[in-house]
Amino acid sequence: MKKKESGHSELKHHFASDNYAGICNEAWAAMAEANRGMASSYGDDYWTAEACEKIRELFETDCEVFFVFNGTAANSLALASLCQSYHSIVCHEMAHIETDECGASEFFSNGTKVLLVPGENGKIDLDAVEHTIHKRTDIHYPKPKALSITQATELGTLYSVQELQAIGELAKKHSLRVHMDGARFANAVASLNVAPKEISWQAGVDVLTFGGTKNGFAIGEAVVFFNKELAFEFDYRCKQAGQLASKMRFLTAPWIGMLESGAWLKNAAHANNCARLLESEIRKIPQVRVMFPSQANSVFLEMAPEALEALRGRGWHFYTFIGSGGARFMCSWDTDTAEVANLVADIKASVA
Amino acid sequence: MKKKESGHSELKHHFASDNYAGICNEAWAAMAEANRGMASSYGDDYWTAEACEKIRELFETDCEVFFVFNGTAANSLALASLCQSYHSIVCHEMAHIETDECGASEFFSNGTKVLLVPGENGKIDLDAVEHTIHKRTDIHYPKPKALSITQATELGTLYSVQELQAIGELAKKHSLRVHMDGARFANAVASLNVAPKEISWQAGVDVLTFGGTKNGFAIGEAVVFFNKELAFEFDYRCKQAGQLASKMRFLTAPWIGMLESGAWLKNAAHANNCARLLESEIRKIPQVRVMFPSQANSVFLEMAPEALEALRGRGWHFYTFIGSGGARFMCSWDTDTAEVANLVADIKASVA
Amino acid sequence: MKKKESGHSELKHHFASDNYAGICNEAWAAMAEANRGMASSYGDDYWTAEACEKIRELFETDCEVFFVFNGTAANSLALASLCQSYHSIVCHEMAHIETDECGASEFFSNGTKVLLVPGENGKIDLDAVEHTIHKRTDIHYPKPKALSITQATELGTLYSVQELQAIGELAKKHSLRVHMDGARFANAVASLNVAPKEISWQAGVDVLTFGGTKNGFAIGEAVVFFNKELAFEFDYRCKQAGQLASKMRFLTAPWIGMLESGAWLKNAAHANNCARLLESEIRKIPQVRVMFPSQANSVFLEMAPEALEALRGRGWHFYTFIGSGGARFMCSWDTDTAEVANLVADIKASVA
Amino acid sequence: MKKKESGHSELKHHFASDNYAGICNEAWAAMAEANRGMASSYGDDYWTAEACEKIRELFETDCEVFFVFNGTAANSLALASLCQSYHSIVCHEMAHIETDECGASEFFSNGTKVLLVPGENGKIDLDAVEHTIHKRTDIHYPKPKALSITQATELGTLYSVQELQAIGELAKKHSLRVHMDGARFANAVASLNVAPKEISWQAGVDVLTFGGTKNGFAIGEAVVFFNKELAFEFDYRCKQAGQLASKMRFLTAPWIGMLESGAWLKNAAHANNCARLLESEIRKIPQVRVMFPSQANSVFLEMAPEALEALRGRGWHFYTFIGSGGARFMCSWDTDTAEVANLVADIKASVA
Repeated sequence: MKKKESGHSELKHHFASDNYAGICNEAWAAMAEANRGMASSYGDDYWTAEACEKIRELFETDCEVFFVFNGTAANSLALASLCQSYHSIVCHEMAHIETDECGASEFFSNGTKVLLVPGENGKIDLDAVEHTIHKRTDIHYPKPKALSITQATELGTLYSVQELQAIGELAKKHSLRVHMDGARFANAVASLNVAPKEISWQAGVDVLTFGGTKNGFAIGEAVVFFNKELAFEFDYRCKQAGQLASKMRFLTAPWIGMLESGAWLKNAAHANNCARLLESEIRKIPQVRVMFPSQANSVFLEMAPEALEALRGRGWHFYTFIGSGGARFMCSWDTDTAEVANLVADIKASVA
Repeated sequence: MKKKESGHSELKHHFASDNYAGICNEAWAAMAEANRGMASSYGDDYWTAEACEKIRELFETDCEVFFVFNGTAANSLALASLCQSYHSIVCHEMAHIETDECGASEFFSNGTKVLLVPGENGKIDLDAVEHTIHKRTDIHYPKPKALSITQATELGTLYSVQELQAIGELAKKHSLRVHMDGARFANAVASLNVAPKEISWQAGVDVLTFGGTKNGFAIGEAVVFFNKELAFEFDYRCKQAGQLASKMRFLTAPWIGMLESGAWLKNAAHANNCARLLESEIRKIPQVRVMFPSQANSVFLEMAPEALEALRGRGWHFYTFIGSGGARFMCSWDTDTAEVANLVADIKASVA
Repeated sequence: MKKKESGHSELKHHFASDNYAGICNEAWAAMAEANRGMASSYGDDYWTAEACEKIRELFETDCEVFFVFNGTAANSLALASLCQSYHSIVCHEMAHIETDECGASEFFSNGTKVLLVPGENGKIDLDAVEHTIHKRTDIHYPKPKALSITQATELGTLYSVQELQAIGELAKKHSLRVHMDGARFANAVASLNVAPKEISWQAGVDVLTFGGTKNGFAIGEAVVFFNKELAFEFDYRCKQAGQLASKMRFLTAPWIGMLESGAWLKNAAHANNCARLLESEIRKIPQVRVMFPSQANSVFLEMAPEALEALRGRGWHFYTFIGSGGARFMCSWDTDTAEVANLVADIKASVA
Repeated sequence: MKKKESGHSELKHHFASDNYAGICNEAWAAMAEANRGMASSYGDDYWTAEACEKIRELFETDCEVFFVFNGTAANSLALASLCQSYHSIVCHEMAHIETDECGASEFFSNGTKVLLVPGENGKIDLDAVEHTIHKRTDIHYPKPKALSITQATELGTLYSVQELQAIGELAKKHSLRVHMDGARFANAVASLNVAPKEISWQAGVDVLTFGGTKNGFAIGEAVVFFNKELAFEFDYRCKQAGQLASKMRFLTAPWIGMLESGAWLKNAAHANNCARLLESEIRKIPQVRVMFPSQANSVFLEMAPEALEALRGRGWHFYTFIGSGGARFMCSWDTDTAEVANLVADIKASVA
């Protein structure tokens, strides 16, 4: 019990990650609702069918929807369905599939290579993409087959509808299939105030990893194929890869509850607003620099290393970033605005 | 809503599988308890550490414990940690890893071959194992490296402590590593009334897949390495394979609740008792044959095909088995003893 | 030098395998011819283009042709181009891909399962194939996608044109792709006295592994895609899998020499005839039983174990087969008919 | 025939690659010698045993030796024996395993990531290696396990004995296993005038890919494990990966002939000398810049793009390099010194 308290205490003052938050009420209620009696397993149940339907309605198109356990699997299985082992995937050098999935894309696809391109604010530079896919066209180097983008990006920035359309055209021109890592897709929709279709299939996205966990779910992401041909036998792929839940209803019922209630968007908007509040206050502090435009639910700032240390000393938790002076502050559906104010006050004190 | 009711109605009279049951109260309460505020992700939290500790206490030994999303992944990752791609795994021809995981073992291990042996009542025949591992010893055929057994078996039978010791000795003699698929390990412990250690590490099991889902959890299995050397870098293996949960506490807190409350054993015992009750009643019906000794939570019976059809017509759900006259009736923690009585009555009526 | 002689001496009296023979004159001369000056590498050379052309002429159709180093790679890469990792390959339980390639099919395809069917004389039983592909149709078991047959079979028997047509129809009916392991395809053509097309694409074969090594080459097999769509990007597949020769001309020039001279068929016919001679003589010996009709270049016979030992004692080399009394005698392009007579004489003496 | 002539004619004036050369006399004679009668297959023969012995003598140590078909397989299998799928390999950004093997390392190891470091003259910068292996130490990123270096490098430069010792110490300090891609190892030995052991195991190399093809063989590379523990079951690995030759003697006999005759070193020295001659003449031409010190058998030079075009116009073949003005001229065992003079004369004319 004491241990547990300390377990909690270490989690006061927390802006380290949006996956530190728990399960929101709407997701919880949906699981409770689904936990009445028995249900067929492996997705052959009411909730799964309904969740698929709700997602089709959300995207206003007939798409193929699958549910897997986490984002690494969702991204890797989606990419494996786009590529053969001798193909390559082009993505930003800071993409999650490159930096935080321990080579899962290479593992699930049995060797598909990830080719990195730079780009400001965590967004791929299209000229760099062009250069990368033209750099080699012989069989001694993996053939570019997929383009993977992240919306919102790892740096808390967003691709605009226009930027996504340009990416879609480039991909189409070079016959590249487009994957979108949407671990924070909800934050993007809320921030851009667009219809989900505008930043997905209408912009040429073939398959989307639609994140649930960071948005208030206990577990689970949806893999949404707008290009239905690419979904062929994806159910077998999921099963073989250990990503088919037997009690699927507990992964899918929350999608119904979150989409019907609008909580998916409300949660994302709250996290975004907390980040925006934090950013606006920080911009008033001369000793602190905001590193990237804060467009989703995170703020990256730069300050003196000793000031960061002082802030840590005050019990705040956050990731430091690209070496010395940078730090990431991530807001979630569960972030307390009062905590944001406390954080700002302590940052001021720390840089003073 | 209407759809939902029908969704439920189709699940009255259900003996198809123990993964049709939902989440039991103890597991649910533990998730609720864990859902207070924020917690570090990826297993770096109080509940995960405590769950590992509780499992070590249960097995009365210092073992390495990991938590993954489902049984297919648990088995496949455990076996991949025992084998190289050019090795082979020896198991019963009806083992789940062979018949119901869509080649996951081969996928996770990049090609390890599964070698099948027969055996009465779903238990491997040791002479057949000897024959299989001696059949080929040249580099043109995969080298046997692991022996995988299932406790309780797919046929609802159990290996006795003595049988397991004999298997362990055989494996040791031939330098085979031993994996136990314990999707229904709790049912085995409850039925044999033994200490968990007696049917695991004391019998030579190197790694155990300890099932949670079928025992009343929402999701998740534990992989328990009694041979700690084999657990080296297993955390990397799980991460790369898309089996590391970010909100790990919701997979691990239930282990605390289930083990502290004893619900893990209570649930298993209840399911076993329902099966025993069903079996004893069925043995009184001359037109029905019990196919295998019912030692865990399932009953396999044989009756006239038309009788099976009649039983289906009365709204009962079950799997038919090995063609015509066989059927499996699976009980779970949630099985209602009144339903067992109803089933028996309808079986009698169907064979009449 | 002395060592070398002993090296040779152990190889007198040899009927163990047709890959014990060396390089025939026509293949050797072609390599010598190709070894004049420099040539572009990786198959971008005169000989490779010409070898492909010669093979197209041989099969009287426009097919895609690739050259790899050995039969294991040829079979595995061909099958990997027909299947995804969650698919399965149906073949005879004694097929080389199952019994002698150390799980290569599973490795190259990242987990494709091999499903075994029985059948007399090493030829698949079509009813057993039907049963196997219908046995399971759910996502929990690999989906049958390819049918692999061996011509000539591992038991030295042959599929007739009619049998192959029936297999092709069955495969077409169930949308199975057909792979033929033709490590001894030349022996089949010579023995059946048919046009190569009759036992390949005209019978529904999608891709053929056309063996060179056992037929007198130093090294190398051809992979011939009659279904050209399946050859898409096969060049990348070969390269990534370490099967693209830099000095390709030395793999391909022999195909020109062997096909232009007719040596490919002459060699096969010679080996077949030696086996036929051996069989006819053995049939005259009452204590010896011929196990399978000898239709290609091997003879399987059964005699008293002690007689086999006596025969070994006389310096003869051969494989023993399925335990005690069975033995395989394999003839090659290089087999000396006098040796066949000596062998027969010693067999008679051994059983006396 | 006409076609063949043209086939040859296109190969006058050739400095494109050392794998355009054919088979040297010593290798050819050894194959002829080995082609007398029958021999056991799969490496169970006199020549293979003797070739292993000769290589042990060459390296003056007891090492494990295996023979595979080409360099891509040799490198990939060697690296796969050093790494698990969740590990990473650190190498120079221009290493062959990264730039010219189509993701083979990732394929054979089922996903091992290749981490790139820069470095002058194609040699890894040790500080960059340190930075790369310290950059990430969490399970969300592949764990550095192997360091792969190329000797001679892709830029025709060499690591000195001292540089190799420093690399070996760094690797030892960080528990990295060391792989050396020695496709042109012979050129390195000849140029540095050292004992092979000085630039291999004495410098901490665990496994070496010892190239034969570019040195005058028809086909085949040796994989030499100085760290014998790492060779455990490597024979199974080769077999499963389609890299075990049935008529092994034709891969191994040339090693005997080349090492006994000293041709392996003579060929390498000749190629090196041709490159040195070319370099020295080019240094006299003011309009041409030598890009890297020519220490092995290649010369990289920079001149006006139009001059390169003019040179091409005169019928010379070579690779252009890193865009516009760079070009690679590669010499081989078969390079004619008169051709070098002709090339120099035409370069002078082209830049005039």
